[in-house]
Amino acid sequence: MVRGFSLLLLLVAVMTPLTAEQEPAQIHLMPWPASLKIGAGQLAISNSFSLAVHGGDPRLRKAAAIFLNDLRRQTGMLPLDFTVTGSAEASLTIHSDRPSRDVQELGEDETYALEISATGAKLDAPTTLGVMRGLQTFLQLVRITPQGFAVPAVSIQDAPRFPWRGLLIDPGRHFLPVDVIKRNLDGMAAVKLNVLHWHLSEYQGFRVESKRFPKLHEMGSDGFYYTQDEIREVVMYARDRGIRIVPEFDMPGHSTSWFVGYPELASGPGPYSVERKWGVFDPAIDPTKESTYKFLDGFIGEMAALFPDQFFHVGGDEVNGKQWDANPKIQEFMRAHGLKNNADLQAYFNQRLQKIVAKHSKTMEGWDEILRPELPKSIVIQSWRGPQSLADAARQGYRGLLSSGYYLDLMSPTSAHYAVEPFADGAANLSDAEKQRVLGGEACMWGEFVSGENIDSRIWPRMAAIAERLWSPQAVTDVNSMYDRLDEISHWLDFYGLKHNANRDLMVRRMAGGEESSALRTLTDVIEPTKGYSRETLATSQPTAFTPLNRLIDAAQPESAIARRFSAMVDLLISGKMKPGTEIQIRAMLTKWRDNDMKLRALAAKSSLVEEVAPLSQDLSTLGTLGLQALDYLDRGEHPPEAWTSQQLALVQQAFQPKAQVLLMIAPAVQKLIQASAGEKPTELPIPRSAQD
Amino acid sequence: MVRGFSLLLLLVAVMTPLTAEQEPAQIHLMPWPASLKIGAGQLAISNSFSLAVHGGDPRLRKAAAIFLNDLRRQTGMLPLDFTVTGSAEASLTIHSDRPSRDVQELGEDETYALEISATGAKLDAPTTLGVMRGLQTFLQLVRITPQGFAVPAVSIQDAPRFPWRGLLIDPGRHFLPVDVIKRNLDGMAAVKLNVLHWHLSEYQGFRVESKRFPKLHEMGSDGFYYTQDEIREVVMYARDRGIRIVPEFDMPGHSTSWFVGYPELASGPGPYSVERKWGVFDPAIDPTKESTYKFLDGFIGEMAALFPDQFFHVGGDEVNGKQWDANPKIQEFMRAHGLKNNADLQAYFNQRLQKIVAKHSKTMEGWDEILRPELPKSIVIQSWRGPQSLADAARQGYRGLLSSGYYLDLMSPTSAHYAVEPFADGAANLSDAEKQRVLGGEACMWGEFVSGENIDSRIWPRMAAIAERLWSPQAVTDVNSMYDRLDEISHWLDFYGLKHNANRDLMVRRMAGGEESSALRTLTDVIEPTKGYSRETLATSQPTAFTPLNRLIDAAQPESAIARRFSAMVDLLISGKMKPGTEIQIRAMLTKWRDNDMKLRALAAKSSLVEEVAPLSQDLSTLGTLGLQALDYLDRGEHPPEAWTSQQLALVQQAFQPKAQVLLMIAPAVQKLIQASAGEKPTELPIPRSAQD
Repeated sequence: MVRGFSLLLLLVAVMTPLTAEQEPAQIHLMPWPASLKIGAGQLAISNSFSLAVHGGDPRLRKAAAIFLNDLRRQTGMLPLDFTVTGSAEASLTIHSDRPSRDVQELGEDETYALEISATGAKLDAPTTLGVMRGLQTFLQLVRITPQGFAVPAVSIQDAPRFPWRGLLIDPGRHFLPVDVIKRNLDGMAAVKLNVLHWHLSEYQGFRVESKRFPKLHEMGSDGFYYTQDEIREVVMYARDRGIRIVPEFDMPGHSTSWFVGYPELASGPGPYSVERKWGVFDPAIDPTKESTYKFLDGFIGEMAALFPDQFFHVGGDEVNGKQWDANPKIQEFMRAHGLKNNADLQAYFNQRLQKIVAKHSKTMEGWDEILRPELPKSIVIQSWRGPQSLADAARQGYRGLLSSGYYLDLMSPTSAHYAVEPFADGAANLSDAEKQRVLGGEACMWGEFVSGENIDSRIWPRMAAIAERLWSPQAVTDVNSMYDRLDEISHWLDFYGLKHNANRDLMVRRMAGGEESSALRTLTDVIEPTKGYSRETLATSQPTAFTPLNRLIDAAQPESAIARRFSAMVDLLISGKMKPGTEIQIRAMLTKWRDNDMKLRALAAKSSLVEEVAPLSQDLSTLGTLGLQALDYLDRGEHPPEAWTSQQLALVQQAFQPKAQVLLMIAPAVQKLIQASAGEKPTELPIPRSAQD
Repeated sequence: MVRGFSLLLLLVAVMTPLTAEQEPAQIHLMPWPASLKIGAGQLAISNSFSLAVHGGDPRLRKAAAIFLNDLRRQTGMLPLDFTVTGSAEASLTIHSDRPSRDVQELGEDETYALEISATGAKLDAPTTLGVMRGLQTFLQLVRITPQGFAVPAVSIQDAPRFPWRGLLIDPGRHFLPVDVIKRNLDGMAAVKLNVLHWHLSEYQGFRVESKRFPKLHEMGSDGFYYTQDEIREVVMYARDRGIRIVPEFDMPGHSTSWFVGYPELASGPGPYSVERKWGVFDPAIDPTKESTYKFLDGFIGEMAALFPDQFFHVGGDEVNGKQWDANPKIQEFMRAHGLKNNADLQAYFNQRLQKIVAKHSKTMEGWDEILRPELPKSIVIQSWRGPQSLADAARQGYRGLLSSGYYLDLMSPTSAHYAVEPFADGAANLSDAEKQRVLGGEACMWGEFVSGENIDSRIWPRMAAIAERLWSPQAVTDVNSMYDRLDEISHWLDFYGLKHNANRDLMVRRMAGGEESSALRTLTDVIEPTKGYSRETLATSQPTAFTPLNRLIDAAQPESAIARRFSAMVDLLISGKMKPGTEIQIRAMLTKWRDNDMKLRALAAKSSLVEEVAPLSQDLSTLGTLGLQALDYLDRGEHPPEAWTSQQLALVQQAFQPKAQVLLMIAPAVQKLIQASAGEKPTELPIPRSAQD
């Protein structure tokens, strides 16, 4: 009974350390661990699986319960299956030397060691936090086998590269209900992230109940805010999964929603209303009034008690200064205090703010703009500008985090995020002490174009690759291995309740108006939203907070896995390194695309949402036809007429122009097929400039 | 811009009353309303849709908020889209003459009138309950059109046929978390059901926190029970959707879980442990001890305060009497009180019980067995025996509900449930006064083989057809119309968060061990679980509460829509009434099934859960081949050799034998193809006896 496991057995005559590139088909860990050896055999996960918990930490017992529940979701076992036991015969024994801190701290030990043999498994860690990480590794190892569910025999020693591995979620722009936050916390825990950066105030909304200043949430949120009970519930939920929550209240800019209830805080005359557009706007806190600091002292005091984490994010980005320029009193204040420009004024504000934050026993964090020599070295800089600014900060003695390159709202391919290395460029030759100041990174999920329905698809699975960049050794960089594992992880995350796949299907069916939506699904699978900030520049009417997010661009995933696989197969074909069946698969895909438009037209006739993308469907059909013709030339070993080639290449270019703000991602590979059929060297078709920003 | 709506316009030169069979393609209401006329044009549902609420009932405002949220889920609109307004220009105006009762009552007025024109819609009802029903009708009318989302112009007058339209859910056998209950309440509201019968105690578990007798939930639930706060939350959630909650505490049988903590209640010696097997067991409450009634008085008092509904279900079914027979004291008691048999003893118990229930201001309800002339006419009988026993009760002056014929756990086709008419058989010639005593019916979702993961697929969409039987006029019986609408409703319910479709996909991918599970999905789509109680008789080892529910039988839906459609197409072909394309579709389906086994074998080699169903996949391939061969004979107008025919018919019979406790539901249609090709009269291949019970 070793069918299907023979490959593994061949690989493992001895315990061999493996890198991610060498991974056997059965191991789809992400992040890839620091050290992995494969053993012989596997440990069965039947309904009599048992877990022994050693260590006095109540949080360890909670972690065990969460783990068993996750294991049930993954295997379809029932609440009564799996037991916690004291027995030495347990299937899995977990042990932590000591509890993790009551309030989880930056830099707490997250290392663990996991040993799995055919007869049992042991997970040891210095702290409960390490056990949590190891349990997720165990869950990622579970798979169905000819003998039922099982985990392969492995020996893993693991530790994170960076102590701060985060995700920013922005309910300021579109409110996100608690269940959306919770399921994304589940996903974060699954890939060993440890910080949720909760961006709680914006021009478009103030999202936390303030008992001290109730007009903040009452007038600044349209009724969509988290109650303090909900905040506490989410903080606890995150804590149980080894995740810190850092709240951000962005100031002095990005703050219109504060001024609806408290216009006296602003630098310009009111009244204010909650902003409905997207962009950078003028309203900013008045840093020259003492009453401002009195308010902030009260507000930060209240929030500091609500959010237990050591760090308190004050934003500080994108102050355009227009309200300051236009306010004579503020200009007078600047002259009187020798503040030469708005940057000086903001630095003054930040110095005052930092003292308030420190008074409430918190460490201030903010975006690049807050970095000024006047500020103490304790503050943490979150860099949206890049590794160079992070390196500069580190050299000046400041701790920092990288977010530049990890903006999930820009719709970049996973490979682009994966390649962003915190110690690149100017950061590469930092001293060891300076490198210690680079705490890690945070992906940013800005909220202009996400709702509770589709946010998961912008975060997942790409987030998992960024999590690997921040957890795994710097040498783990193989893109093919990453994508192989990412495809598995993406579907594994479905069992955690994430909706990146499920809601795409639902949204496609909504657009198509019924069950028979396969033609629209076929189109959805090969397109991607345009990149960068082009969604706004390409829009026919300016999107606002009222604009529905129910179009193809909203349903489509940021990266088309099918286009990626198709491109890889075309590359193999052109390079002559095809495997058997590759050309047949390419032909089948092209044929499907060629013939899809007929079916899609029937849907388009019934639905305005499909009608919008009908031109793309025509283009897809054209690309299918062209690709098949090019293949025919290649098969016959015959070059097409030159006129044909240039004409078809122009058609491909045209098909790659954005329409309905999306891109047909198979166009570049079809261009290569045409070029190859003409005996030309295949070139990369770049994403049109208009679709990039 | 009337593409796609031309059919509708043709139909509606005048407002014409329509029956369900005449429904135009755009109207997929279920239950079908009492009266429907179609008008001209449609009302747009854009992001500026507004709702005006007239009527002082706070519950009406709550209903409006729930409606808008449902409308957002369905259309992908955002929290800021849609407004509640006081304006006379509102897109939809809702009005109720009076609030519904604080505690929802049996028989409250649920009628409503809905008028939709191209310029606006009005929903009027005597009570808020009627508004809730009408709002669900409105939601079912929403669809995507060439002009965006819209509802067609209609005029609907509607009222339910029966005042009690329920669903029994049984967390006693497998615990069901609160979110599972809530999403099923959403589904119930969507099809105008008004009673959740919550079966809260069983041999296998006691599921409610009792503060008075805490050992009930502490020792009788394995830790899986609803807290009283959760109960209150669910009761409120149901109330907001116009659904009453009737709790059932089954006694004197089905009560092992009570005795774990309170063995003194039992008729036999303890100690007791929570039952793990399925079936009928001996433990029963001791009806002869006064302490029993003291306990029940305290317990029922506590539960009567927790559950506001007028009705209190005491179970009363399936007492095998063995503990009573074996207990000399009970025998002595029976002799002393002139109780001749166990039925007399149970009637004695029920008389005592009824007084306690009445003392706590509740009306007693129970299964058929409680019906005895000693009991007052106020009690309500829930009939699992059939319309005859219901009619008998009505003639004796008792009110009753039909559940026989509505057992969802038996895996019957929707058409079978749909055909079950409460006024059939002995009930057909009841007097009007007697008919009034037939309150309606309840579908029963018994819990032996459902978990939170797959229960939705056993309830939905079949429940919607039973809801129609209980709501719509008796004359609404067309099965084809029902199935057409059911297919739409099934996918519409996805937007309500029901998991009958989503979790099938997830379970299939779990079995296949990854994304590429299409071959297993193809097989899943044409099989059904065996029927009746055959799952237990066909099991190789007796299933228990520990048995995982993660096999194909658990993932498969009770009725295969694809097999049903295939059979219908084959019937058309054989009868010579084919539409263009029918034979091509039949051939495409048969070809797909013939070729599926190759792909499925690759999955089976990697997964024990797929390996189990590999023989079915082979059979499916055989059926595909046979069907294609029969079609070839038919096309050539040539009869096959007799030996071929008999041999193939035997193969089809063999392929229809249950394997892995499931049935290949395309076998009957393939038999017809073979018979037709041989010039024989096609006959129905019956479900094998072994697969029925």
